[in-house]
Amino acid sequence: VEKELERYHNYPYQRISLQIAEEVIGMEESPVAALKRKRNSSIQVAVNLIKEGRAEALVSAGNTGAVVAITTLHLGLLPGVERAGIAIVIPTLKDPCLIIDVGANINPRPLHLFQYAIMAKVYAEQILQREKPRIGLLNIGEEESKGTNFVKETFSFFKSRNGNLLNFIGYIEGRDIFAGEVDCVVCDGFVGNIVLKVAESLGETITEMLRRELSRNIFSKSVSLLLKNRLKNLKKNLDYSEYGGAPLLGTQKICIIAHGASSAKAIKNAIRVAKEFGGHRINNNIVEALKKC
Amino acid sequence: VEKELERYHNYPYQRISLQIAEEVIGMEESPVAALKRKRNSSIQVAVNLIKEGRAEALVSAGNTGAVVAITTLHLGLLPGVERAGIAIVIPTLKDPCLIIDVGANINPRPLHLFQYAIMAKVYAEQILQREKPRIGLLNIGEEESKGTNFVKETFSFFKSRNGNLLNFIGYIEGRDIFAGEVDCVVCDGFVGNIVLKVAESLGETITEMLRRELSRNIFSKSVSLLLKNRLKNLKKNLDYSEYGGAPLLGTQKICIIAHGASSAKAIKNAIRVAKEFGGHRINNNIVEALKKC
Repeated sequence: VEKELERYHNYPYQRISLQIAEEVIGMEESPVAALKRKRNSSIQVAVNLIKEGRAEALVSAGNTGAVVAITTLHLGLLPGVERAGIAIVIPTLKDPCLIIDVGANINPRPLHLFQYAIMAKVYAEQILQREKPRIGLLNIGEEESKGTNFVKETFSFFKSRNGNLLNFIGYIEGRDIFAGEVDCVVCDGFVGNIVLKVAESLGETITEMLRRELSRNIFSKSVSLLLKNRLKNLKKNLDYSEYGGAPLLGTQKICIIAHGASSAKAIKNAIRVAKEFGGHRINNNIVEALKKC
Repeated sequence: VEKELERYHNYPYQRISLQIAEEVIGMEESPVAALKRKRNSSIQVAVNLIKEGRAEALVSAGNTGAVVAITTLHLGLLPGVERAGIAIVIPTLKDPCLIIDVGANINPRPLHLFQYAIMAKVYAEQILQREKPRIGLLNIGEEESKGTNFVKETFSFFKSRNGNLLNFIGYIEGRDIFAGEVDCVVCDGFVGNIVLKVAESLGETITEMLRRELSRNIFSKSVSLLLKNRLKNLKKNLDYSEYGGAPLLGTQKICIIAHGASSAKAIKNAIRVAKEFGGHRINNNIVEALKKC
């Protein structure tokens, strides 16, 4: 790695310190097993640096389950938080929207989702600059009679505990997410993860279909070039790497989870998100907000 | 309605017979309540016609829960079928793919999903012309250790009951659906419904983003016209109304569920799907396939 860095003559060597991490937690490994067996994984080594006060944030494109398990166990959760949740900002037809949880907690209780909503509210206010962010609970219909028992219990929990804490607008449907009808979508990590991956791949599928349509040799070169630039803008709107990593909300320290297939730009943006997160003191605000529940 | 029909001079009046249905089941109504109170809804009247042998198929763009409840109760399920499931064909980067269930059964048991897979296989073979259709179980990762308890139990159920019945390829992720990695996706109706609605709205969102990009006044009129035609092709690829309605698989008779916001073309295509369904004798084949389990 040192040799590779030396190729970049002007890299800020004072600001980069290399750490040895001799083990790798594979993307397919069980997080719990990895947690026990691999003490020298890059995730564990980074978390140790934070524990020792030598680093302030973790940015990882590694095994998500392992990141969640190691940070929860070794850094701890914020006072009052029962479970950490992964929040991701996605583009919509209107303003970007925050979805929580997209994979940290696949068997949540209603309390967990309520706490996710509180954390999402704080994040949306501070990072996305939203006033009274609208919070929706993802379901298959907007009527109170619809949905699984878990979703109905969660809805009742929100109603009973909310008071004036959240601008809770009730159930929303899958179609409301990308229409930009809410600022924050709350759901369990199983559904959230599937929604995220479906959206990602459908975005790629559509731009690929479009590329095929446009490459049918009917346009002149100059027009094709113009079109390419328009397509680039569109792709940028849909490109998750532009939005950087997904913060793991609820942990004591700053933890940003990047896509396993992150490009250099995505990693850069994930580091930017970590910096913004620190600057806004979101964690303190989350703790304050949770005290009011 | 008669007056409206008379405006179309050449309509095939011998082939259209009007039936009186004095009640409406609203889209927001609870299916069970509607089932009991409204004996003269269009859904109930149509189902009665099928029961009396005067009609062979139901096509409805009405309240989905009510359609599922009324057909299950009054027409019955096929021998061996425990629950009906809604199957929908969606476009992918490769060939169209069938997803079952997208909303009939939000609290399924593993057996229900296994039966859905059998029904999907028969449908994919006969309607989509696939040989040995690849069946995937929707999860948040491909490794056996991942997923909710329900998904893991379903996976074990598939492994123990399958034998050589299905070309079961195991877990698939959200990103595999639109990449076209499988012929049939099996999931519970809660997740399936959300996936469907997310995909639908994201398709609309992306084409709208694109329209905005392309209408920035930088192209000549002739180029714009060419582009519009290309966009039309793309939209057609993504337009669910082109694929017609979604068959409710497992019921004794033919039942096609159309989108609540169906256009005339979507209804036409839903009727086409009903006709194809009848011609292929899918129900008999489903019964035969289930006998082998």
